[in-house]
This record gives sequence, C-alpha cells and structure tokens, in this order.
Amino acid sequence: MMRTRAVFLFLGFYIGLVAGDWNILGFMGSKREEDTAVAAGRKNYCESWRMNVELNNIRGFEVVPDECVDYVGRYVTSTQYEVDVQLAAEEVILFLAHTFQLGGDGKDAWVFDVNDVLLSTVPYFKQRQFGGMKRNASAFEAWVKEADAPAVAHMVHLFHHIRTQGLKVFILSSRADYLREATVDNLINVGYHGWTELILRSPEDNYSSAETYKAAEREKLVHEGYRLWGIVGSQWSSLGGYTTARRIIKLPNPLYYEY
Amino acid sequence: MMRTRAVFLFLGFYIGLVAGDWNILGFMGSKREEDTAVAAGRKNYCESWRMNVELNNIRGFEVVPDECVDYVGRYVTSTQYEVDVQLAAEEVILFLAHTFQLGGDGKDAWVFDVNDVLLSTVPYFKQRQFGGMKRNASAFEAWVKEADAPAVAHMVHLFHHIRTQGLKVFILSSRADYLREATVDNLINVGYHGWTELILRSPEDNYSSAETYKAAEREKLVHEGYRLWGIVGSQWSSLGGYTTARRIIKLPNPLYYEY
Repeated sequence: MMRTRAVFLFLGFYIGLVAGDWNILGFMGSKREEDTAVAAGRKNYCESWRMNVELNNIRGFEVVPDECVDYVGRYVTSTQYEVDVQLAAEEVILFLAHTFQLGGDGKDAWVFDVNDVLLSTVPYFKQRQFGGMKRNASAFEAWVKEADAPAVAHMVHLFHHIRTQGLKVFILSSRADYLREATVDNLINVGYHGWTELILRSPEDNYSSAETYKAAEREKLVHEGYRLWGIVGSQWSSLGGYTTARRIIKLPNPLYYEY
Repeated sequence: MMRTRAVFLFLGFYIGLVAGDWNILGFMGSKREEDTAVAAGRKNYCESWRMNVELNNIRGFEVVPDECVDYVGRYVTSTQYEVDVQLAAEEVILFLAHTFQLGGDGKDAWVFDVNDVLLSTVPYFKQRQFGGMKRNASAFEAWVKEADAPAVAHMVHLFHHIRTQGLKVFILSSRADYLREATVDNLINVGYHGWTELILRSPEDNYSSAETYKAAEREKLVHEGYRLWGIVGSQWSSLGGYTTARRIIKLPNPLYYEY
C-alpha cells in the first residue's frame, strides 16, 4: 500500500514536470490545467527572453527579469549551456581548418574576451540571483580578486588550439587594469598560458563604452600590423564597432548586458 | 489488471519523455539509460545547433542537419517560435516609443524583409523536410507564385503599428522582380498594405550576395534622404553590410542560410 502510494506520488510529480514542459495534459482536471498553463507560459516567455537577448533584439537590460531568474540559473549551470559553447568552439576550429592561412610573419592574431569566455562568472552570479540583482561593480571586483573563477567549458582547449596554429592570442577585457594580477593568476590557475598580451582598461578608458574601448584597442593592433582573424566574446559589444575581425563568435550569455 | 498495466505503460511513456528531456533517470536500467542518453544528446545537439545558427556562429549551411530535421520542424510550428517573434516585435514597439522621433518631413523609414518576416515560408519547407532537403530555387519560386503564404504571427500588427507612427515602410527582399505580382497579392491577402515601395531583385542584381544587394538598396534610400530607423529580417545578411539602420531586429530562422 505504502509502495503503491509512493509510485503514484512519483507519477504525479513527473506528470507535473512533463505537463509544464509540453502542455500536453489539457485533458486533466481544471486545477492542473491552470497550473500547467502558467508553467508553459513562463517557460515560453523566459526561453524567448533568452533567445531575444542572444539575437541582440533585447538590449540594455539591468537585471534578468524576476520571473526568469530560476530559468536563467538552470540554463547557465546546464549541459545545454556547455553544448552550446562546444558547438561555437567547433565552428572556430572548422574556420581555422578551412579558411585561415598562416601569414608566416607572426602577425596573425585572435582575440578572446575574459568574462564568460575564458573565465566563468557563473559562481559570482549564483550569489546574486543569476543576474536578477542589480550589478554591483565593487562586489564583482572583490570576487575577481579572489582569482577563483573556473574556466568556461571547452575554452582552455580552444585557446591552446588557436595558439598552436601559430596565431598570436590577445586577451581583451573590460576588467580594470588594477585587477591584472588577479586576472593573470586566475587565467593561469585554470590552464591558460602563452598569450601575447592581456589588454585591460586603464582609468582613462572608463568613460567610453565597452564597444568603443574594445574596437579602439583592436584598431591599435591593426596599426601594429596584426591581421585579426577572429574574436570570441560573450557580449555583442565585444564583437562590433569600427574595427572588428574576419570571424566573430558570440558565446551565449543571458546573465548581464554590457554596452 | 488490464487497467494497472495501462497505467504503467502510460507511466513508462511519460518517464521516457521526461528522461529524454532532462536526463534525470540515470538510476534506471541500463537499456533505458542508453536510450535516454541518446535522446537527451540529440535534443541538446539540435538546440545548440539552432542557437549557434541564431548567434551567427554557424554559417553557410546548405541543409538542416538530418538528425535535427524533426526538431526544427517542431520548433517552427510551435508556440515557442510565435512567442520568440512576439518578444522581438515588442522590442520594436518599445524602441519606437522611447527612441524614435518623427522628423515631420516624410523621411523617416523602416525596412522589412519578406521571407519569414512578413510572410512565412514554413508551409513550403514542411514539404521539404523543414530545411533538410537541398534548396531548389525553381520549386521555391513555383510555391511563391501560388501567393498562398500565411503571415508570420504578430507581423501584420507590427507592420501597421510602424506605418501608423508616420514611418514610411520599405519592403526589401531577395525575391526576383518577376515574382512581384504574386508577392503583392500574397502580402495584401494576409493583411499588409500601405507600404511605400516593394524592392525586389532585378536580373542584374543576381550576381551579388543578399547582403551586398540589400545594403546597396538601403544606401539608395539614404541618398534619397531617408533616415533608416530599423530593419526587421530573419537572416543576418538582411541586417548588415555597409548601410544598415539605427536598430536591427533579427527574427529566428533555422530553416535556411542566405549569404
């Protein structure tokens, strides 16, 4: 008897999950119908919110919408996120195999961003409702100083793959220059090494947007004779502007928006 | 007895669904484990494939990968797709409410693409394995001539919302000029009217890419004094190039890739 009851509780729990996900149990009682309608609606909304963030249709959000905090938290800690990054990394490898031709003059270059490209900020945002709390620059910098961010999955492999093709790797980040030591320690601790330059924001850059600052830094590299083959970023502002690159790769990032 | 068996078959069916989707039943028998691993893997892969297409990381695909044909078919006929488009449309309305200022000289303009923006090609691709079959220009044109494409959800409303703000609407498509009559009939039949110009490809444009052709046509509009406030497209090639617009909106489209 106990056992039968347990099975039915179990059944009910999974039906609830399935119904919320696919909204296929309209034939069930009206209370259940209402519940699942709400669940399906919220899941659709949050998935659309995330898709439109990635498409750069939704811009300038200060926080993740309250009703999508749980959804975003599940996504950035999911296998799905890792597979999304993996497929992006594979596209870089395919590009290098089929399009890239080494110049032989040491001027072939690739650009990586730091936050949610080489290093994951997910553990930080986990403490701040997965982007559901307003950004707090000093709390974020305190966390960066701990130099304990994990690598984003697949990125250590991609970094060294690019480097060993003969490309110079530039790391270009919005992090402030006084976070250099912590950033270098953190990068090395999780497996990155052998980059050519780590470019961080000097105090006088603080008044320009991330896009303007990053495009200007890339422009300097072009003036030095580098051919920018690609950029991997997790914000559209890391990839656009006046000077960009042959191939841009946008990693998913529904946690925050950077101009 | 029969009834109990039916309940357990039912239970098994839903557990299968849930397990495939969330891969949470690793404690079940090894046969089941294998099945669910495959199912979860394929769903993750196809979802990542679609996300990377939308991020413009995966480019130039000739067909939807065979193993994702069912997944893409479900997506483009789902509520999720409609909600994705709805949120994109809402972003245009918010942009117009907060950023747009009418010039009062009749030179404020907005650009729409046709395929999978104003008119849905999903019924055509349904006959061709939802993008799983190689593109066939003559079959597609025969279908366009039927002038029977439905409107993409939310787009008739958005079209008239923009038009009634005092903006001139330009429709700029890669469709060939000899498809003009069918395209006009189709647009009007599903509820669009009042556009300023429908720009289609003339035979001499056929050698340039969609991006080059569309940017050149927008450049002509700028030379005529129009301020291009926005573009709604479903391909990145509809949105980029030398002359773009203040705000670009990319609708989801995993069915095909246009250079």
